[in-house]
Amino acid sequence: MEIPVDDGIVLYTYWRSSAAYRVRIGLELKGLRWEARQVHLLRDGGEQHGEAYRVLNPQERVPTLLHDGQVLTQSLAILEYLDERFPQMPLLPADAAGRARVRALAQLVACDIHPLNNLRVMQHLERGLHLSADVRTQWTLQWIAEGFAALETLLAGSSDTGTFCYGDRPGLADICLLPQVYNAHRFGLDLSPYPTLRRIEAACQALDAFERARPENQIDAA
Amino acid sequence: MEIPVDDGIVLYTYWRSSAAYRVRIGLELKGLRWEARQVHLLRDGGEQHGEAYRVLNPQERVPTLLHDGQVLTQSLAILEYLDERFPQMPLLPADAAGRARVRALAQLVACDIHPLNNLRVMQHLERGLHLSADVRTQWTLQWIAEGFAALETLLAGSSDTGTFCYGDRPGLADICLLPQVYNAHRFGLDLSPYPTLRRIEAACQALDAFERARPENQIDAA
Repeated sequence: MEIPVDDGIVLYTYWRSSAAYRVRIGLELKGLRWEARQVHLLRDGGEQHGEAYRVLNPQERVPTLLHDGQVLTQSLAILEYLDERFPQMPLLPADAAGRARVRALAQLVACDIHPLNNLRVMQHLERGLHLSADVRTQWTLQWIAEGFAALETLLAGSSDTGTFCYGDRPGLADICLLPQVYNAHRFGLDLSPYPTLRRIEAACQALDAFERARPENQIDAA
Repeated sequence: MEIPVDDGIVLYTYWRSSAAYRVRIGLELKGLRWEARQVHLLRDGGEQHGEAYRVLNPQERVPTLLHDGQVLTQSLAILEYLDERFPQMPLLPADAAGRARVRALAQLVACDIHPLNNLRVMQHLERGLHLSADVRTQWTLQWIAEGFAALETLLAGSSDTGTFCYGDRPGLADICLLPQVYNAHRFGLDLSPYPTLRRIEAACQALDAFERARPENQIDAA
């Protein structure tokens, strides 16, 4: 049975994937209806490696978004696409300088923190390099702490920062920050050195869109 | 003595930084005049960690771009900014679907390959985890090969691919690809499994803009 979807948006997602979590927040902020298709990243060696999914996403990763005959990959590219196609609740400021700032904050997380801590890297540290669980956790904490320290400095020191990472409306930077903070909690990182990040986390968590996108609120949550 | 710069663009760069290399290509493709300020990533423990530079870039990384009173960080955010402010020779297609595809190809490199192989990670593998040079090289090669395999599949299987990653004009995806291919050569990766990437590499290298941006053609090249 086909699930009717207003905008014909299908998202291949996994509850705990940070990148899928980002796209879920973006879809919810824009008030779009979307159909979730679960890709279990751990079951049977990882459903993302299956033949059917590989055709959609040769990187064998989530998320993948289907819309309007397009197969879209990479969470930030998907979010920019949604922002261009569904201009309500813009995820980026209107001016080039503001857009550059928000994109830089988002990329600090998406290019410099998250890639070091995602599933395939953690699996490689364990199975390829045979590092202990303690060393692997230390690895994760180090990169998050290093990135968060820079992010805290950038946000605390700027008059562009408001209730959210940029002004008083949530956007692309908040969308990247929240899943990374979720991961930080999961690995037990002490967040007290980052009061601005914690304040923004609380502001985001108070919004329905962020709540609906939370890993624990997905039907595939363990 | 101040160097006169047409557009008032200053780029903090290091010849071998992939991220700085990307921005140099973008500036050259757009025919912009820019002033290079060298940040030596290895001298004296790394000039990027110095107090003066940290004020500009709390992440202590290159590149940083100054323009119009703004301090811009993160190479992809800088390139999108340049594309918005200097629309000549657009780095992205005009339609949302095309833009999403080019951004996804660019991010495949910038989010999924390069972050695992950059200087601070390689230094951590050596000094923090005490991994041998062989294991570190293997680490680098593995992530490049995995990313390039997906990129080859995506590019070879799409009618959007032309002389370059998207159509017959170089853009954001090529800008990310070339520095990564440069790194692949440096680490001795066998590129024969990626004929489409090699073809695009050759097409880019035939262009003056890519040639001028090459690491070896920077004044700080070793």
